[in-house]
Amino acid sequence: MGGDQLPGWRATPVKQSILGFVAAVTNPGSADFVAEAERIAVFDNDGTLWTEQPVYAQLAFALDRAAELGHPVSIEQLHAGGMPALVDLVKLTHAGITTEEFDAVCRGWLASARHPRSGRPYPAMVYQPMLELLSLLDRNGFSCWIFSGGGTDFMRAFASDVYGLPPYRVIGSVGATEFRVGPGGPELVKSEAIQVINDGPQKPGSIHAHVGQRPIVAAGNTDGDLAMLQWAAASPHRTLQLVVQHTDAEREYAYDRDPILGSGTEQILAAAAEHKWAVIDMAADWSTVHPPVQ
Amino acid sequence: MGGDQLPGWRATPVKQSILGFVAAVTNPGSADFVAEAERIAVFDNDGTLWTEQPVYAQLAFALDRAAELGHPVSIEQLHAGGMPALVDLVKLTHAGITTEEFDAVCRGWLASARHPRSGRPYPAMVYQPMLELLSLLDRNGFSCWIFSGGGTDFMRAFASDVYGLPPYRVIGSVGATEFRVGPGGPELVKSEAIQVINDGPQKPGSIHAHVGQRPIVAAGNTDGDLAMLQWAAASPHRTLQLVVQHTDAEREYAYDRDPILGSGTEQILAAAAEHKWAVIDMAADWSTVHPPVQ
Repeated sequence: MGGDQLPGWRATPVKQSILGFVAAVTNPGSADFVAEAERIAVFDNDGTLWTEQPVYAQLAFALDRAAELGHPVSIEQLHAGGMPALVDLVKLTHAGITTEEFDAVCRGWLASARHPRSGRPYPAMVYQPMLELLSLLDRNGFSCWIFSGGGTDFMRAFASDVYGLPPYRVIGSVGATEFRVGPGGPELVKSEAIQVINDGPQKPGSIHAHVGQRPIVAAGNTDGDLAMLQWAAASPHRTLQLVVQHTDAEREYAYDRDPILGSGTEQILAAAAEHKWAVIDMAADWSTVHPPVQ
Repeated sequence: MGGDQLPGWRATPVKQSILGFVAAVTNPGSADFVAEAERIAVFDNDGTLWTEQPVYAQLAFALDRAAELGHPVSIEQLHAGGMPALVDLVKLTHAGITTEEFDAVCRGWLASARHPRSGRPYPAMVYQPMLELLSLLDRNGFSCWIFSGGGTDFMRAFASDVYGLPPYRVIGSVGATEFRVGPGGPELVKSEAIQVINDGPQKPGSIHAHVGQRPIVAAGNTDGDLAMLQWAAASPHRTLQLVVQHTDAEREYAYDRDPILGSGTEQILAAAAEHKWAVIDMAADWSTVHPPVQ
């Protein structure tokens, strides 16, 4: 294929390391060749594939839904209440509803809500260069998966349209469901119990449970992604690790600590320096941040 | 494609219902047409795709491994001890080992162990007609998945070779794993905690978590599969439900209660009668049970 396959990436060493990696592992004549079935790539979502500032999109959704349900909560209350307040908000806004109803609620919100600073719909807050990377990997026989701290059901409401990934490749934190033969026939009702918080050392476990193979590409942006990148880096194959660094206050945001849970970036940046992982300096490495407005 | 696509199935109404269903949902001119992305098929494993008598293969594995580890347990002790004894056996034989080591242990056992009555390797105890069905569905754009009560890691050690399914499509009960940076580098260690017992009403929940779509084909053999079949049957699309009935004492086994956990078949057979699901009478509907010996 001719032309620039990653037009949203400037011609920096990071872009070269991505293209060099893909060329090597897909070349049957290369010592680094990896069979298609083993070309697994895993991505964090919030802050890695789309904007997570000023708050996670899913939190904006939960706040809007709480208000709609007659139990408004403010961001200040959440900060004051810490994790227990966040869990209460999730229970209020994500439970007691069938999986199909919840999907419809999420899709409705995603179609109407707007990011507070840009005024764009949230799905338009994805990173154009990462869409190009997903597409490049897909064309080269990779299976791309998302392993994120966000909720699986919420993410699946937009991931197929935005990232082109089938639902089974989109995995996040998981709430329990209860099977019942209800008024709408056999259905699954989302319950208040949280089964998996898909962050930190849980991420490799979730990848094992869902994929059953060790990835060769892993991308993240905070210390909550470190275990995932470490685990992938220890594959016997040649691997690629990417750390997205938020350095672009003008086109996106500049920060080194995630907006709600407070996960930092010290450990993942230290590991990146030690193991020569690719660190994406958003301001320097990306010529475009978000896709053009439709 | 010419010729008989299901040669291990006799020309009975069950075979006709399978072929009729596949023809209808794959025909773009049919009112029953279903797009490829929504052609999800789910199968129980033990007793549905392979023999589960006189004991589950995984239990035979656990008993052999317990003896090898110096803690022999007998089937009689297990029956006397009930579920707690079974859980103890699983903890002893499935924990404290990395996922990669456990995979190697399972593969070693599967290569050497023999089914007590037939003398065949366990992977040769699969049902030839079900292999043909998996293959027919695959050729017709279906994604076939296994949702079984057996352990995910154990099943994945043979499912790719035997069923031709990638690891991510093989889901069973799940033990927790712990991520550590150990002597072998970053790795996952299987722990004693059981996260998911993938049976009964849990099966639709697991399908939702792993596939994220409601299936249109579901196959099982005991009441533990009822919820899975009910949930699939309530799809808005045309669906196919299959219940394997063990009626063949000569070529396989004749029984209506599973060998260890005691799950019966009354409910699933009653549902099959009520909803006109296809009941596979193994003795009558299958011309072959197991594949020819290699």
